[in-house]
Parts: sequence; structure tokens; C-alpha cells
Amino acid sequence: MQYFASDYMEGAHPLILQRLMEINMEKNSGYGTDEHCERAKEKIRKACNAPEAEIFFLVGGTQTNATVIGAALKSYQGVIAAETGHISCHEAGAIEYGGHKVITLPQYNGKLSAADVEKYLETYYGDETHEHIVMPGMVYISHPTEYGTVYTEEELKALKEVCVKYDMYLYADGARMGYGLGAEGTEVTLETIAKYCDMFYIGGTKVGALFGEAVVFTKPKTIPHFFSITKQNGALLAKGWLLGTQFDVLFTDDLYLKLGREAVRLAIKLKNALREKGYEIFMDSPTNQQFVVLENEKMKEISEKVTYSFWEKLDENHTVVRFATSWATTEEDVDKLIEML
Amino acid sequence: MQYFASDYMEGAHPLILQRLMEINMEKNSGYGTDEHCERAKEKIRKACNAPEAEIFFLVGGTQTNATVIGAALKSYQGVIAAETGHISCHEAGAIEYGGHKVITLPQYNGKLSAADVEKYLETYYGDETHEHIVMPGMVYISHPTEYGTVYTEEELKALKEVCVKYDMYLYADGARMGYGLGAEGTEVTLETIAKYCDMFYIGGTKVGALFGEAVVFTKPKTIPHFFSITKQNGALLAKGWLLGTQFDVLFTDDLYLKLGREAVRLAIKLKNALREKGYEIFMDSPTNQQFVVLENEKMKEISEKVTYSFWEKLDENHTVVRFATSWATTEEDVDKLIEML
Amino acid sequence: MQYFASDYMEGAHPLILQRLMEINMEKNSGYGTDEHCERAKEKIRKACNAPEAEIFFLVGGTQTNATVIGAALKSYQGVIAAETGHISCHEAGAIEYGGHKVITLPQYNGKLSAADVEKYLETYYGDETHEHIVMPGMVYISHPTEYGTVYTEEELKALKEVCVKYDMYLYADGARMGYGLGAEGTEVTLETIAKYCDMFYIGGTKVGALFGEAVVFTKPKTIPHFFSITKQNGALLAKGWLLGTQFDVLFTDDLYLKLGREAVRLAIKLKNALREKGYEIFMDSPTNQQFVVLENEKMKEISEKVTYSFWEKLDENHTVVRFATSWATTEEDVDKLIEML
Amino acid sequence: MQYFASDYMEGAHPLILQRLMEINMEKNSGYGTDEHCERAKEKIRKACNAPEAEIFFLVGGTQTNATVIGAALKSYQGVIAAETGHISCHEAGAIEYGGHKVITLPQYNGKLSAADVEKYLETYYGDETHEHIVMPGMVYISHPTEYGTVYTEEELKALKEVCVKYDMYLYADGARMGYGLGAEGTEVTLETIAKYCDMFYIGGTKVGALFGEAVVFTKPKTIPHFFSITKQNGALLAKGWLLGTQFDVLFTDDLYLKLGREAVRLAIKLKNALREKGYEIFMDSPTNQQFVVLENEKMKEISEKVTYSFWEKLDENHTVVRFATSWATTEEDVDKLIEML
Repeated sequence: MQYFASDYMEGAHPLILQRLMEINMEKNSGYGTDEHCERAKEKIRKACNAPEAEIFFLVGGTQTNATVIGAALKSYQGVIAAETGHISCHEAGAIEYGGHKVITLPQYNGKLSAADVEKYLETYYGDETHEHIVMPGMVYISHPTEYGTVYTEEELKALKEVCVKYDMYLYADGARMGYGLGAEGTEVTLETIAKYCDMFYIGGTKVGALFGEAVVFTKPKTIPHFFSITKQNGALLAKGWLLGTQFDVLFTDDLYLKLGREAVRLAIKLKNALREKGYEIFMDSPTNQQFVVLENEKMKEISEKVTYSFWEKLDENHTVVRFATSWATTEEDVDKLIEML
Repeated sequence: MQYFASDYMEGAHPLILQRLMEINMEKNSGYGTDEHCERAKEKIRKACNAPEAEIFFLVGGTQTNATVIGAALKSYQGVIAAETGHISCHEAGAIEYGGHKVITLPQYNGKLSAADVEKYLETYYGDETHEHIVMPGMVYISHPTEYGTVYTEEELKALKEVCVKYDMYLYADGARMGYGLGAEGTEVTLETIAKYCDMFYIGGTKVGALFGEAVVFTKPKTIPHFFSITKQNGALLAKGWLLGTQFDVLFTDDLYLKLGREAVRLAIKLKNALREKGYEIFMDSPTNQQFVVLENEKMKEISEKVTYSFWEKLDENHTVVRFATSWATTEEDVDKLIEML
Repeated sequence: MQYFASDYMEGAHPLILQRLMEINMEKNSGYGTDEHCERAKEKIRKACNAPEAEIFFLVGGTQTNATVIGAALKSYQGVIAAETGHISCHEAGAIEYGGHKVITLPQYNGKLSAADVEKYLETYYGDETHEHIVMPGMVYISHPTEYGTVYTEEELKALKEVCVKYDMYLYADGARMGYGLGAEGTEVTLETIAKYCDMFYIGGTKVGALFGEAVVFTKPKTIPHFFSITKQNGALLAKGWLLGTQFDVLFTDDLYLKLGREAVRLAIKLKNALREKGYEIFMDSPTNQQFVVLENEKMKEISEKVTYSFWEKLDENHTVVRFATSWATTEEDVDKLIEML
Repeated sequence: MQYFASDYMEGAHPLILQRLMEINMEKNSGYGTDEHCERAKEKIRKACNAPEAEIFFLVGGTQTNATVIGAALKSYQGVIAAETGHISCHEAGAIEYGGHKVITLPQYNGKLSAADVEKYLETYYGDETHEHIVMPGMVYISHPTEYGTVYTEEELKALKEVCVKYDMYLYADGARMGYGLGAEGTEVTLETIAKYCDMFYIGGTKVGALFGEAVVFTKPKTIPHFFSITKQNGALLAKGWLLGTQFDVLFTDDLYLKLGREAVRLAIKLKNALREKGYEIFMDSPTNQQFVVLENEKMKEISEKVTYSFWEKLDENHTVVRFATSWATTEEDVDKLIEML
């Protein structure tokens, strides 16, 4: 069996496990007040070229989105997201549970358009009754998006400008950040992200860690008392050094970036092979998620030999499926998949 | 100056004020435990032909929607509404503030379609990952809608059937119920509403009362401890008899219905006159709200003589405006408006 | 039957009803944007000697407390209150429902002590783990308290100093403010309240109005977008002028103060008579609520002739009951009550 | 340096780390739908003698309390806890953030008394105005308590009876359950806990795991859709098998119980040695937390050689400190500590 259903089916990169073994019996202070966290934060600040950034380690993606968005918005504000944004559809209403509306705008290959956001804000403030309407206080993007696409620096800049103009935060969900940074042809680095976003997170769970997401507030004191806020949200890990250690390893010798690039290389290899074999590529993704159109019979046939994700029904006879590579995917895995398709 | 901007610009119907004067120095027990409330409830049960209905009097519309929806839904549930539903756009996010997603579906003249709702539910339960997605727990409709249109009995029946099939409540926002009941050509009565909806409210604020909305749960024990829930939501009026008394008067000698019918009659008169004068009717509303296309110049011209509501920009030179009649509108008011247009 | 069970058993002072009648058919703009509200605000600013104060009219007490406290606190903050504070025990958990802990401290005749508050804050910030503990962000007092007692200017000053020292708001619940201002021997005026409190409300419901509470933020921009916050909390009355008008009347010719003083005069007359008759006064209240110890048999005996509030069981044979006068109580009512006791 | 400050300073028991290594590259399905979770659940059901129990694995203690309590209570309900309960004071208001009041009652050596609970409920339902007061919907206990004490079976039975009588859930916070099960002289087993509690959690974080808490609902369908609720609370771990695997190891060959017993044996050895040396034992704890009175000078002196937790100031010259053993404490650690005291 080959496994391409998702990018969170294995444990952690061996270097991480090894390090966790090494420090297992160390005595560490709790709640992220330890040296491992400090070291990891320092490395992340460097990678982001954001020497004043405040960094917090949380456990999972939905938790991070809900905690950060809830902390940043005023009660009367909502967050703008693409209709396909993860917070819009796959977080069981965690954002609304925290009291905030997700204001959805159209997606273009999974991305928000700055022009759409601007138009929405113009309409909002142009409406005499806007005090009766949820005020947009943040723009949420995912990088890469749920469709594997990535923003260009120009697009990020344009979004940032709208945010500045209308006093909104720009927040990037980086659950798969590593695969975005390693995207084919991208010029966007962590430094670019940190330059344009007020806050974002660097996903560990899907990119080599057992679990863990590193939240970066690029400017200090963006959210006072965020520590208490994480505690209150049940998002404060007692043994915080487990998170710090993992990010310390991931940000040593560019491991995070390397893992992302290698997974992307394999995904692109798969995409090219699929194209050569005549498959229709549904979405031209430059990252680790590849979306392909399969005839339903073919889909059934291969389902006994490979796992994939059902994406959507295209028509009566065709289905879009997703193959995801990850830091754990090997060249052999991909070759076998190509062979069987 | 003529006033057609909204249907909540005046105090209360004279009979209501008179009754409030009469009982002003009566000693009543608080929080709706008085005889006026009891009497009003009994009359409403009768008008709904729902002898077991539980009735509560709240103060305003947004408050009522937030309290009822919050009380009826489980934490992981959301409410389906038309994209133009009042809770979707004009309640400052009160529903999300209470923790619940408003799941928006397309509107047809302001109305939800049962077929759309059914399709949404099929897709929802057909999605393997639906436990990660907000579960629809209620369908919200407004009767009449924000566009002045009304549901037919058949449409209500169809919505109810989807609700039963997928274990959802059907809830009608009746902020303007009186104008809906008095709609041109409608067969829908309070009895019809009570037959198909699990819960709804009969709006007083816009239909003759100073304020107040009567929430009807058609089946007993639908929401245990709703009294405490209203208190917790800040929706429990200390002098509850002020609400009971107003509804007592409104449901005496069919006053509520009469007020609705008369306002509708005047609105239809206006619509017909506008048509005759060659204006384009934007939405063919059978109730007290009339939506008309005006040339921008005409709009400006009349704005010194009449108040109306801006609805939306149609094109560079045309705007949709709303004229609303109410229980307080007189034949003379309408005649003057017709004359000046 | 004589009625002394509470101070919200009647409608409104005749002057208020008369004014509501007069303006009943006026066309007013909604949501408190009308002239009546403006006029009332200006009068209240004057009465408070707070020319920059921002004023909002809400409907009821629990609603006001929940809305103001929720708006003022950060998510990780709680509000300090006496264990007998209304928000601590009689608002069905509305403050917690809004996400905030009510931190209770001991009461002394219903009042908080500044020394206790200071000690609590010292302990809080002295605890190394205080980031895991709810941060106090506000001190809530009631004036008069639930026991009818009032703060002295010195006590308010002391509380304010602790609040300033620890960056907390001082908020006064003035559900019965009129009776506090009219208290026997008090030097505290609205100006005093406005001088020490960051925010407070002037209760209308219990002091002559049909309903309505005037929230005063003594400094401008204390809570940006409070309008949207009230909407979101279901606390924005569509026909806001109903509130403005009532407060306009109450703050014309010192009516509010006069109503308070007269009710207090009658309450003190009752207290003195009770003392003379040998009854034990449970709490020496200088306002409209009087707490008396009755033998259980006596209590039963009079319960057929007068309504009162059960307060607490004192011992097997004695009970504390409350008699409340109000703006609607007459000299004759009190004389009859004295006679029957 | 000796470390006795807390019981969550190290990683995981070696058998757990080893198992995580072994399965690291296995392909597992996400969100707890894997075989490791199934196996662990089955073992826990057996250990609890609760064949129908529903089990969920969450990440941390505060998260678990907030998620379970929020899921179990109705919006108008609160949870009764000892004033020293973890949810009462050390969870940054997570329960209130979720909308619910923590109703605190006195503690006796950290424990709630069933008699107090019953008295509270009698008073509650005896109060005519109880619909204006938060309804108790759950009793929260910690086993062992924050003071290291444990409930007897009789005490659990008495609490359960009050809960049944007043229709409340009984919930046990088992953050240190292992040390409670291993308590000196206890007759309470997991089976006992499961017999009397409707829900409880078995703490992993402090008893051998890297992290993780196993929530047990003893009766099926206690909380429908708890999966979605955990997702919504940000408490659903993507790689759920990391939790399942850890509990699988902990519940193999009674490891959980053995770890608890050994830590307790060492703690008791410490207590006895302290007594012999003439120290005053502040609280006679039968579990892994020992509370001792130290002279301030002694406390300072040893603070360079051992870490401990400050508990409270006893008087000017004396302080209560806590020494905690854990699954990672060795005989040698304790001997060294005894020697230096």
C-alpha cells in the first residue's frame, strides 16, 4: 500500500525524536519557560529577520487559529477569509465558537484577492448602517492555501496595504508553511511573510514535528498577556519544552526548509509524471498537495493500492482527488505511485 | 416632510398607550409573572391554534434572535439562513457572538429554498469529514423577508420536511409578522406559521407596539429553563407586564392583523401608483415594504420632501430605495407621497 | 393590600407617561440617534458635571451590567465584586456567560472594602503563577448596595485609588441610584460618582421610568464602538427615543432626585416607626429598602395584608424581610403599613 | 541540584518513548481513528470495568476541564467546586471563558463535602428566585486533590447521591489520578471512580506520558458529538495515535498504577523522614505531593540545593512548601533530599 492521503500520517523526523530522547530526563521548567523554547525562538526570529518578534508555541492548527484570532479581534469584529479558508469550513466553527464571524470572500485557486478585500471594505464603510454589521478586523490567509497554491510577494504586499488602510491585522495560517517556503518558483521566504503579516504561524505538525505550531507576532506587544490567553484557551502545553525542542531541531541547519523542499520536489515529480501520462491536473499546485482528475473507475481501481483524499466530484464519471507528499515521503513511494497510475 | 424610511419611527398604537395609562399604577409582579402576560399568552395561543405553546415576551428583534437561536442550538451547531437574512448581515454578529455560525445559502426574493437546504444537508452528511464542519441545527427564515416577500404554505411545508428529515428546528423571525399576515394574496396565517415552525416570534416593535416581541415555542418543553436563559441574555424585562399588556391589546379584536392589513393596503396602493407612473418596481413585494428604482436625480430631488431607505446602487444612474408603510401611516401620507413622485 | 415587595411594581411616573403620549406620533430616527436622547444626555452630563461623558441608554440592569462589563474587560480579566453584589448572585450567570469570572470578596453591609481589594491585588501580583489566574480588570460596586447601604465619598476615593494603582476600572451599578442620591445623610452626588467611577449607570426602571438605564462613561472613548457592542448584545432598543424621553423627563427640574428623596423619606419614616414599636432593624439602611427582623408568626399574620420580600432566615423563629418603598409609594401606604405592624 | 518542584519536569517513561520510536514511521489515520487509540481505549475500559465507556484522548488538563465541563453543562448551569479546585483558581478563567460559573464551596483538606453540596442545593431550590441564579449542573472534584488528599469510596458515594438527587453530573479531574490510585491506604480504584463518576479523566501528563489526558464517559452517549466539540475547542490532536500509544503503554502490565505507587512510596518515605526530623507536616497527604512547614531561613538555605513549590506564607517566620515526587523520581533523589533537610 502507498500512502498519499495526507501529510500528517507519521510521527516526527528522526532528528526530532532523537533529540527528545536525549533530553527526556532533563528537568525543565514548565509552560515554555525553558531554554529549549528560548533557543528555538531565537532561531525563528533570525529566520524571519524579525529580531523583536514575540513567539509562542501552541499544539495544533485549529487551536492556534482560534486562539490567535480570538485574541486579536475586538468582540464586534470578524475575520475575512477565502470561502475555502480552513477557518471558513474545516474547524467545526471554532472561530464562531469564540464569538467571531468569518466573513467569506471568493477564492481564486484558494487565494484571497486584495482587490476583493478592498471592495468589501469600501462597501462596508460606505454603508450608513455599518455599525450594525460585523466590522472586519483581520484578513486571514493560508500560505500555502488549502489548494496548495502560494501567494506572491506582490499579492502579500497588496493585502497588507488594504489591511493598513482599514486598520486590520494580516494573519497567515502556515499549517503547511514549510511546503510553501519550498514551493516551486516562489520568492516568498519567512522573511517575506514576517514583513507583511502582523502574525502568522509556522506549522510543525505537518512538516516534520510530532505536533506543534510556532506563532509569530512580528511586532512586540501586539497582544498583551497572550500567555494567559493561551492558558485560558486550553492551548498552553505543560511540558512546553517538547514544543521548543522540536522547533529548535527544525530550525537548525535549515531542516524545516529542507523538508519542505524535498516533499515539494517529489510532489512536482508526481505532477509531471501524471501530466505525461495524460491525466488532467485540476489545480496547478507548486507545493506538496497535488489535485488530479481521475475517472471514477480508475479511482476505485487504485484505491486498493494507494490512499488519497477525495476532494470533489467533478462530473458523473470524474472525481478530483488529492495526493499529498510530506517530509516522510520517499522517492521510492512516488515512483511506485507513478507506476501504478 | 413625508416619512417612509422605516416602520419603527413612531411610538405605539393609541389603544396600547391608553391601556398602559390605565394600568400604570397597578401593582404587578415582575418578570412576566403577571396576569396581563397570562392573558396575552392565552390570546396568542388561540390565534396560533397552538393550545400547548409556550410563550415568552422579549424586548427587541436582535435580542430575540440571539436568545432563541443560542438556546436552541448545541455548541457545535450552526443556523442556516438566506444570505440576506437579518441574522446574516444586520445584527452586528450577535449570533456568532453567541458562538454559532450563520450558514448562508442563496436567496430568491429574500427567501430560502427548501431544495437548496436539502442539497446542503445532503452534501454535509455526504462529506466524510463532516464532524469537522459546523452541523446545521436550525433553519432560519424571516416572514416576511427583508425584501418584503412572504413564504407560501407549500414553501413552509417543504422547509419543514427538510428540517424533520435532518433533525433541525425551523424558526421564523417575525419582526414584521403583522405585515406578512396581512400580505396581498397570502394564505399563510399565524396558525400556518405555528403548524410548520418549531419556534417563531411575533414582532411588536414594528407593528403597533412601543417595543416587544412574542416568542412562541409551538410544542411545550422545547427549551427547558428558557426563563433563566432570557435572564442570562439580558433579555428579561423587569416590568414584564409592559410587554404582556401590549400584546394583550394587539391580540384583542384582531388589532394586530388589522394594523398589518391596513399598512399593506397603503403600500400596495403606493406600488400600483408607482407602476402607473412608470417607475420600475425592483421587487414585487406584497407587504409593507416597497422597493423602487429611482433615477439618482429624482432620488435627490425628493429627498427633501420624503424620507426613504437607501437599498442598493443599481447602476451609475439608478438606485433602489425602499418606502415602508406602517400601522402609523395614513391614507393622506401615501397620497402625498404619490403626488410628489 | 399594601405593596412593599419591591420598587418595580408600577409603570412610570405620570410626567413620563404624559410626555410619551405627547410625542407618540412624532417621527423619530431609530437606535438613539434622535433629539430626545441628545437632550437627555446633555442634562445628564450637566448633572454629573462631566461635560465629556459618553452616554448610552440601555433597557435593563442585568443587560447593562453584562454589556458594560463584557465591553470593558479583556478576555483574561475578571471583575471584583462583593459576595452579595447583584452580578455575583442574581443575574443568572450573565457575566460568566459573557466569559468573565466574578471574583467575590467579603461584604460589609453590602459594601466592598478598598483594603480588601488592595490586599487581593497584592496577593495576586505577588503570586508567581498569577498569569494562570484571572486578572482583575474592574471593581464593581452597587450604589446603593443590595442591602440599601451607600458608599461615602471617602470610600469611593479609596476604591478609586486602588483601581488606579492596579489599572482597573471602577464601575458602579446604579439600578437604584436615585434612592442612593436621596439617602439619609449622604454627601455623595452624581458628580461624586462621576468623579470616582470610570463608568456607571443611572437606573430608570426602579426610579420612575417604565424601563431604561443610562450608562455613563465619564471619559470619552473609554469603550470604542460601544454602539455596535450594545447591538451585538441585543441591548440596542430600536425606538431609542423611548429611553431618551424618559431620562429627559427624569432629569428635568431634578425629578430623578426628588423621586429618590421622597421614597427615602417614607422608608426612614417606616424604619423609625418600626424601631419605636420595638422591632429589630436587621440592617441600618439609609435608603428605600428596609430590612427588619420579624417573628415567623407575625410574618405570616401580616402576609395577608402586605407584600414584602423574604430576605433570609435568621433563626428557627425569626426571619429577615425587606420592605421597599419607591417613587410610587404614598404617605398613606406607609401609614397603613405602620399601623398594621 | 535536586528537583521536587513539580511532577511534570521530565519527558516520558522510557517505555513510552521507545514505543513512539518503534511506530514513528507507521502510517496512521488522523484524529484518533487509529488502532493504537482503539487498543488503549479497550484497556482503559477494562481497567475501569466499564465496558460501555466512551473514551477520548485530549492533550492537557485545563483544556480537558474546559472542554468536558463546557460540553456537559447547559448555558444556564454552573459547576460546583472546592474553593481550592484547580478550575476555581488556576486555569486562567477557562471555565468562565466557556460561559460557566464556578460555584465555590469550602474545602476540607482540599476536598468537597457532600453535606455542603447538599445544603447548597437545598438552599438553591428553596430560594423562590432561583431561576435568577446559576443552576448547579455538575460537581467537580479532583482526585487526588490539589492538596494531595484522596476521597474515600464512602465520600464518592455520598457525592454521587447528591448528584443523582439533584440531577447533576459528578466529574473527577484526574490530572494526578495515578498518584491517587497509588495513595497510601486508599481503597479507591479506577473501577470505583468509574462507578461513581459520570465522567473523569486519567492524567497522563503528570504520570509518565509526554502529554495527554484520557477522558472517560462511563455511560455511552453521555455527550453526543463530543468529537466535534473537541475539534471546536482546539482540543483535537491531528496525530491522535500519539495519545493512544502513550495510554496503550501506560495501561499495559499496570504500568500506570505502578508508576503511581512508586512515586507515592517515595513521597511517604520523605514525609516520614521529615516527621522524624521534627518538621511540621502541613497537610497529611497520602500521595506524591507533600506539604511541609519550613522556617524561612531554612527555606532559603535549601533553595540553592533543591527546587520546591512555594505554597503559602504561614506566618512571619514560616512558609509552607510543597515537595512533589513523580514517576521520574528515584530513591537516590529522595535520600539526597532527606539528607539535606
